Amino acid sequence: MSNDKAVLLISCTDKPGIVAAVSTYLYEKGANIISSDQYSTNYQEGLFFMRVEFSIPNLDRHFPAIEEDFRPIANKYEMKWNLFLNSKKKRVAIFVSKEDHCLVELLWQWKAGDFECDIVMVVSNHEDLRATATGFGLPFYHFPVTKENKPEVEKRHIELLKEHNIDVIVLAKYMQIVSPGFIEPFRNKIINIHHSFLPAFVGAKPYDRAYERGVKIIGATAHFVTEELDAGPIIEQDIIRVSHDYSAAELKRVGRMVERSVIARALQWYLQNRVIIFDNKTVVFK
Amino acid sequence: MSNDKAVLLISCTDKPGIVAAVSTYLYEKGANIISSDQYSTNYQEGLFFMRVEFSIPNLDRHFPAIEEDFRPIANKYEMKWNLFLNSKKKRVAIFVSKEDHCLVELLWQWKAGDFECDIVMVVSNHEDLRATATGFGLPFYHFPVTKENKPEVEKRHIELLKEHNIDVIVLAKYMQIVSPGFIEPFRNKIINIHHSFLPAFVGAKPYDRAYERGVKIIGATAHFVTEELDAGPIIEQDIIRVSHDYSAAELKRVGRMVERSVIARALQWYLQNRVIIFDNKTVVFK
Amino acid sequence: MSNDKAVLLISCTDKPGIVAAVSTYLYEKGANIISSDQYSTNYQEGLFFMRVEFSIPNLDRHFPAIEEDFRPIANKYEMKWNLFLNSKKKRVAIFVSKEDHCLVELLWQWKAGDFECDIVMVVSNHEDLRATATGFGLPFYHFPVTKENKPEVEKRHIELLKEHNIDVIVLAKYMQIVSPGFIEPFRNKIINIHHSFLPAFVGAKPYDRAYERGVKIIGATAHFVTEELDAGPIIEQDIIRVSHDYSAAELKRVGRMVERSVIARALQWYLQNRVIIFDNKTVVFK
Amino acid sequence: MSNDKAVLLISCTDKPGIVAAVSTYLYEKGANIISSDQYSTNYQEGLFFMRVEFSIPNLDRHFPAIEEDFRPIANKYEMKWNLFLNSKKKRVAIFVSKEDHCLVELLWQWKAGDFECDIVMVVSNHEDLRATATGFGLPFYHFPVTKENKPEVEKRHIELLKEHNIDVIVLAKYMQIVSPGFIEPFRNKIINIHHSFLPAFVGAKPYDRAYERGVKIIGATAHFVTEELDAGPIIEQDIIRVSHDYSAAELKRVGRMVERSVIARALQWYLQNRVIIFDNKTVVFK
Repeated sequence: MSNDKAVLLISCTDKPGIVAAVSTYLYEKGANIISSDQYSTNYQEGLFFMRVEFSIPNLDRHFPAIEEDFRPIANKYEMKWNLFLNSKKKRVAIFVSKEDHCLVELLWQWKAGDFECDIVMVVSNHEDLRATATGFGLPFYHFPVTKENKPEVEKRHIELLKEHNIDVIVLAKYMQIVSPGFIEPFRNKIINIHHSFLPAFVGAKPYDRAYERGVKIIGATAHFVTEELDAGPIIEQDIIRVSHDYSAAELKRVGRMVERSVIARALQWYLQNRVIIFDNKTVVFK
Repeated sequence: MSNDKAVLLISCTDKPGIVAAVSTYLYEKGANIISSDQYSTNYQEGLFFMRVEFSIPNLDRHFPAIEEDFRPIANKYEMKWNLFLNSKKKRVAIFVSKEDHCLVELLWQWKAGDFECDIVMVVSNHEDLRATATGFGLPFYHFPVTKENKPEVEKRHIELLKEHNIDVIVLAKYMQIVSPGFIEPFRNKIINIHHSFLPAFVGAKPYDRAYERGVKIIGATAHFVTEELDAGPIIEQDIIRVSHDYSAAELKRVGRMVERSVIARALQWYLQNRVIIFDNKTVVFK
Repeated sequence: MSNDKAVLLISCTDKPGIVAAVSTYLYEKGANIISSDQYSTNYQEGLFFMRVEFSIPNLDRHFPAIEEDFRPIANKYEMKWNLFLNSKKKRVAIFVSKEDHCLVELLWQWKAGDFECDIVMVVSNHEDLRATATGFGLPFYHFPVTKENKPEVEKRHIELLKEHNIDVIVLAKYMQIVSPGFIEPFRNKIINIHHSFLPAFVGAKPYDRAYERGVKIIGATAHFVTEELDAGPIIEQDIIRVSHDYSAAELKRVGRMVERSVIARALQWYLQNRVIIFDNKTVVFK
Repeated sequence: MSNDKAVLLISCTDKPGIVAAVSTYLYEKGANIISSDQYSTNYQEGLFFMRVEFSIPNLDRHFPAIEEDFRPIANKYEMKWNLFLNSKKKRVAIFVSKEDHCLVELLWQWKAGDFECDIVMVVSNHEDLRATATGFGLPFYHFPVTKENKPEVEKRHIELLKEHNIDVIVLAKYMQIVSPGFIEPFRNKIINIHHSFLPAFVGAKPYDRAYERGVKIIGATAHFVTEELDAGPIIEQDIIRVSHDYSAAELKRVGRMVERSVIARALQWYLQNRVIIFDNKTVVFK
């Protein structure tokens, strides 16, 4: 029963005894540990990261107490931590422009039952993908964006997202640079798919530039959005081999395949609470 | 300091409290947990597997006590377990016939410092690779094998391996089927590289058969040797793409590349105590 | 203009002068050769395969003459050959059962303009995917299949396919073994996706058997259907890495990803006349 | 017999009739075409590239006449062209510094008979790899390089390479930036292995920078050396997946694996006359 399951994510300075404290706590709460992953950097003073998935019968009823009782341990080790009940699905908004491949991939996997989340809305600066969204039973919000109205539109985006309690925003080929004012309220909650193997080809028209450079491999990168363009923490990357006889248009076509799978894996891991951000990088417990 | 580090490997029936018991024990011994991996099957009654890498100052001196004190916990949960001191290097024997690619790969990575082990000897049924072995400063034992003398030769192999306290035997293109009498004393300690993506092309001449079948991918499989040919627990597999214009000889040539990397990774993981065998499969904690 | 383009596919016994004869013929017809691929086996007497893509202004008007005039050259070298006008799209029927992933992938790529073909119908032994087919504007034919009515149903399949001039049939997770009587009239025109890396796991339930065997990689294979189960000429294969913590259900889930991309590439190459069958294998000119 | 085989490489402006002219010429010379590849760009005025491998009995004896007789055809189409007799092995010099992995890979594959070339010498700015070179029977030239003596050393390099009729120079982890004066006499004949997926991480310390950036994939790139650092035509690239728990040192260690295979494939293709340079890119006929 997913009602019985939760994930605990922890980041803190590494010290002896953390794993013992956490696992003893969970044992005393009657938990069965389903999986436990841990990673410690050993540079500087050392950072400690942990993901524990556990089950407790009727967890959803006892959840507030369990959360509350963990606080002293968290405080002792000065942890940043989150406890996610599996039954409480994350609420997702997908932003798109005109290209549908990432959107369709996400919606298809969602409908197939592969994503444990509620996809709540599709937002776009164009009308093109309305039928795709509504065909999957989703509301479609169209906000045309110009240089002039962008601050106003982003304000309305934020209102809409807050009103619907959105937990994660996927920029699934939303061909707009979002401003710091939009990023701030959703810090570490906006995932973008970039159509290159970052840090190669930061910015616009990566396929044309890949073609110019004569690369033999093209890639895609899913990353959290930060104020610096295409420089946020990388969640996942993948590549596909190409050759001299691919035109820029064909690079783009095969690039769609790798973009689709990369954004889907990144979202999956985020939904499963496998991703921790630190130092502009990610730990991904697979 | 690797003198301070050890790895604990555990297999047992899954029960609540195991992680807490192990991590509390280690904490009380003054250990810092470097990494901890855990996996539970959830079929049947459930199996539990754990690998913990930890450090304790001056561990090598306290090792016997630490091992002894863990026994009651192990008994309580009916664990199969092993405690490996990182400073105690595994002793490796490599068996070869005429082809040198896997041998050279292993010796080169070893010399480059990538394998924490002592490669102690090279054993062969042919003279061909003597210079390669001795060039790396290793003794080379040549035992010609015929149908008639095979039982006698294997008896001498066993004596030689026991005499040198060999911990793991790598069949690095040793083109002989070893008998149950040889396997028994080195149960779960013999790693073979098979030149196909098992279970495709079990047995002899896999490249010729891959050519006949017109496959578009060829593979290699590293597995523990059991009495049933090419059917032991798989440690690692990998593949390489090929096309219609590869002859059987060319399949073999590119196959050497994938064989080399697969056997090297499998040995690496075994040496790092990342591999646990169960139900004719492996858990590999990477 | 695709009206100006055609592909010539040739198989014959290798002899000097074939390339010269073909390219001189095309030159005299005013053709510009866009791409030319050739492959010769050098075993036995040697087979020769060639694919030439060329353009001739107003080709569709001159096509019959061009075809007719090539006949003497073809006869001289005893060629098996085909001339495909790019503007004459192949007509495709897709057979499915209950799983939608391959169907949706093919339809999405088709709608995205990646496949130059007419997908004409979806045929199924179940009702489940009717909405998917009709959502893409395609007729959906439902023929329930039982052991008893199978010969009768296949007769109706054949009639339907012939009536609509179907050029290629894709078994996109059609979980039925088709009989020789169905294969015969569509020899070399039925493409199946098999959910394993053939020849491993021929037959039913490959993911369960992959799970049992503890493989570290799972694959998918697109092949032409012949009378022997899962033994026809392989067009494309690919794999995805898995680990011990994938359940049989999860193997199946990730397997869907590789099945989708493999069947899509195989169909693409077939539509672009890149595939030639010989000796129960394929030449694929990429 | 490789004495009977040759490869013809052609670049020119695309025009109808080139393939016919070339293949008819070869037919009249009694050649059997073993393989023929062709690629035309269709931007601007269109470039045409062709590689033909053919055999003619006793080719080495007739070679000068065959070359001479092709000249009128080449002139007619204003071709850049080269005719390479397979029996005339290319002469290779390998430049190294202290790291041996690329050198050992190349020498091992060469000794295994995979490279049809004469490796003639190893040149280094350090003494470290002398034993490796001489162990393979190769002369080892040590030229210490300082900022001051670099022009003088490069002059001596050039003399040495010319004296030994070197056809291709492989910078196999030669950690020096070569100057324009060195590049000029060996234009398009110097192949470098760069330890990143170019154009990401141009310049020094790519693994440290990959670690900083938190990439999930690292790569390697083999390219021709031009005056602009790491910006020459790319021949081959490949990648390997990594995760958050790789230190910069471990990225470097696994990076060695991908560097080895990339430089080996690039050299192989160059030796087989499969690589044509244009517009700071390469056509690679595989």
